[in-house]
Amino acid sequence: MTSLAVRYTAARTLTTRPADTEPPGPGQVELAPAYVAICGTDLRIFHGDMDARVKAPAVIGHEMSGRVVRVGPGVEGYAPGDPVTVMPLSWDGTCLACRRGYRHICQNLAFIGIDSPGAMQQRWTVLASTLVRLPDSLALDRAALVEPTAVAVHDVARAGVSHGDRVLVVGAGPVGLLIALVARASGGEVRVVESNPQRRRLAEQLGLNAWDPTTDVVPERLRDWTQHTGADIAFETSGTEPGVQTAVDALAVRGRLCLVAMHPGLRPVDLHRFVWQEQTLIGARLYERADFETAARLIDAGTIPADQLISRIVPLIDALGAFESLEVGGDVKVLVDCGASVLERAA
Amino acid sequence: MTSLAVRYTAARTLTTRPADTEPPGPGQVELAPAYVAICGTDLRIFHGDMDARVKAPAVIGHEMSGRVVRVGPGVEGYAPGDPVTVMPLSWDGTCLACRRGYRHICQNLAFIGIDSPGAMQQRWTVLASTLVRLPDSLALDRAALVEPTAVAVHDVARAGVSHGDRVLVVGAGPVGLLIALVARASGGEVRVVESNPQRRRLAEQLGLNAWDPTTDVVPERLRDWTQHTGADIAFETSGTEPGVQTAVDALAVRGRLCLVAMHPGLRPVDLHRFVWQEQTLIGARLYERADFETAARLIDAGTIPADQLISRIVPLIDALGAFESLEVGGDVKVLVDCGASVLERAA
Repeated sequence: MTSLAVRYTAARTLTTRPADTEPPGPGQVELAPAYVAICGTDLRIFHGDMDARVKAPAVIGHEMSGRVVRVGPGVEGYAPGDPVTVMPLSWDGTCLACRRGYRHICQNLAFIGIDSPGAMQQRWTVLASTLVRLPDSLALDRAALVEPTAVAVHDVARAGVSHGDRVLVVGAGPVGLLIALVARASGGEVRVVESNPQRRRLAEQLGLNAWDPTTDVVPERLRDWTQHTGADIAFETSGTEPGVQTAVDALAVRGRLCLVAMHPGLRPVDLHRFVWQEQTLIGARLYERADFETAARLIDAGTIPADQLISRIVPLIDALGAFESLEVGGDVKVLVDCGASVLERAA
Repeated sequence: MTSLAVRYTAARTLTTRPADTEPPGPGQVELAPAYVAICGTDLRIFHGDMDARVKAPAVIGHEMSGRVVRVGPGVEGYAPGDPVTVMPLSWDGTCLACRRGYRHICQNLAFIGIDSPGAMQQRWTVLASTLVRLPDSLALDRAALVEPTAVAVHDVARAGVSHGDRVLVVGAGPVGLLIALVARASGGEVRVVESNPQRRRLAEQLGLNAWDPTTDVVPERLRDWTQHTGADIAFETSGTEPGVQTAVDALAVRGRLCLVAMHPGLRPVDLHRFVWQEQTLIGARLYERADFETAARLIDAGTIPADQLISRIVPLIDALGAFESLEVGGDVKVLVDCGASVLERAA
C-alpha cells in the first residue's frame, strides 16, 4: 500500500508525497503514527542547521504516538491496534556506556528521526524493541508528549529532586516547562526564570511562579523565596551563557545544577563557588525506558497537563505551516495529525 | 609560664618571641604542639597575600600534632599526655549548611590558624571540641600530616572512588599526591599529571605513574590506559585553566570531575561534554571529623607513607628558613618542630 510521508528536502522545504510501504521484517513492527509533535531539533533540521547529519530527503519527527498496524516475524507482545510510542534510540550495545548500562548515552548512538527515518508519515516501520506501550486510557494527542516528558522525568531523576526541595528552572521552553511540572510532581517547590513574556504567561497558567531575568528581580525574589540560602536544585534549559550564570548564582550550599541544554563552545563558569559550597553540576541527556513509562503515567494521570501544552494540531498535509508557525514563537507544542484514526477504521 | 610563638608580622617576616599562657578556660584544652606542617595557605599568608584577612601579628599554622598539657573546667575524655590533632574549624551552627549537617562548609566558617591563633607555638589553647585523638602508635611527626590527608580522604569520598575505578589526578602538589595515595588505597587505578619534574619524580617514588602535560603524551597515555574510554574520575588539584581542561577532556561517559583547588575568576568549561556524556562535576572542600579519623588510621597503618612526604623538619626557631625554602619548590612537606617532646619531659 502507499501512505503519505512528509520529507525534509532542503532548508525550509518539506514535501508531502506518497511512499510505498513494505511488510515489516523480522523483529519489526509497522505503526500508524497518530500525532507527531515538533521539537527544537526538528526545527533546527528544518532550518538546514543539521544538513551535515541529516541526509535529505529525510522523514523526520520523533515525538509521537500511534497504533500498531502489522507485526513482523518473531515479534511477541504486540497486536494490531495497540497504542504505542517509540523510544527513538539505537545503540551499539558494545561501547563503555552500553556495557555499563547507560545505553541512552551510547558513544555511537543513532537517533531515530534524525539518523534514520522518523514518524512524520502515515506508516512507520520500527524495531519492536523501540516500542513503549501506552495506557489504553491515554488520548493519543496527549501521548505525543510522552517523549519530551520522558526527558524531563530523566532530568528530574538525575538531579534527585525530592520533597521540599527548592527548584529553580532557568528557561521555560517546552523542556523547561515539563521539568518544572515533573519537579513539582516530585514534591519540589518550583520557580521558573524566563525572558519571553508569552512563555512566562503560559508558565503562570500552569500554576508556576515565573520571574523575568531581563529585570533585576531574580536575585531579590530568590532571597525572599529561600530566606537568603539559595535553591537546592537549578535546571539550566536555556542553553545561554546568562542562563548558566543565573543557575550557578542561585545555588545553595551543596546545591545541584542539572545541565539539560546544549552549550556550544566554552562557557565561563565560577568554579570557585562549586568548591566553596560543595556544589555539584550534573549533565543529563535523553532518557531511559523507565522514564518513558513514568512519563506516560504522569500524562495519563493528568499530573502533566498535556492539553495545556499543545498549542495547535495541524493535518499532515499542513506540516510546513506548523514548522513556520513555530518560528514565530508563540506556540509551545504543535502536533501534526497523521490521520491514524481514519486509517485505523479502514484497516 | 611562657612559651615561644612564631608570629607573622608582615609580608615575608616572622618573629619568634616568648608568649604568656593562661590556664585553659571552660571547655578549653592547652596543647603542646609537637610538629606543625606548612601548607600552601600558610605560604600565601607569609607572602602577604592574605593580609586583608589575617591580622598581624598572628600565630599561624593548622597542620599539627601534639599532646594535651592541661584541660579546662568541664572537659572530659582528655588527660595530659594524650596525643591529639586539631580539626581547625569553627562553625556558627545555625546557617543552612550547619542545619543540614555540613558544618565544614558553614556559611560563616572561621578557620583556626587563619582567623584565630594557630599552632606554630609551644603552647596552644583550643576548644576541646576541635580535638581529634591520635592512635598511641602513630609517631607525632607523621601525625602532622593527618590534616592534609583528611582533605584527601574527604575528596576521594566526595568523588566516590571505588575498586577498579580509573582515577586521574591533575597536579601532584601535597594535596594531589595525598589524593592519589588515598584513591589508590580505595582500590582506584591511579595516574598523575604534573608539569614539575621534581614532583613527578616524587610521585614515581611513591609508586605512582606520572605524566608530563607540557609534552603531548597525556591524551595518548590516557587512550592506552583506558582503551579509549577515558577516566572514571578526575581530580583537579592544580588550580589552573589547563588543569581544568585536562581533567574534563579525560573523563569517560558518566565520569566524575572532583574539583579540589580554588579557581579565581571564571574558567571556560566545555559544558557540552557534561551533558552529552552525562558527567558530573563535584566541588569538595575541607573535611569532616570522620575524615580526620580515617586519615589518622591510614597514616598509622603506613597506607599513606607520611615519611616519604616529609622533606625536612626544622626547629621552631628556624621557621622563617622553612618558609623560605618552600618557595624554592623542591620540598613537599616541611615540618616545624615545636619541641613538645622536650617540654613534655619537663611537665
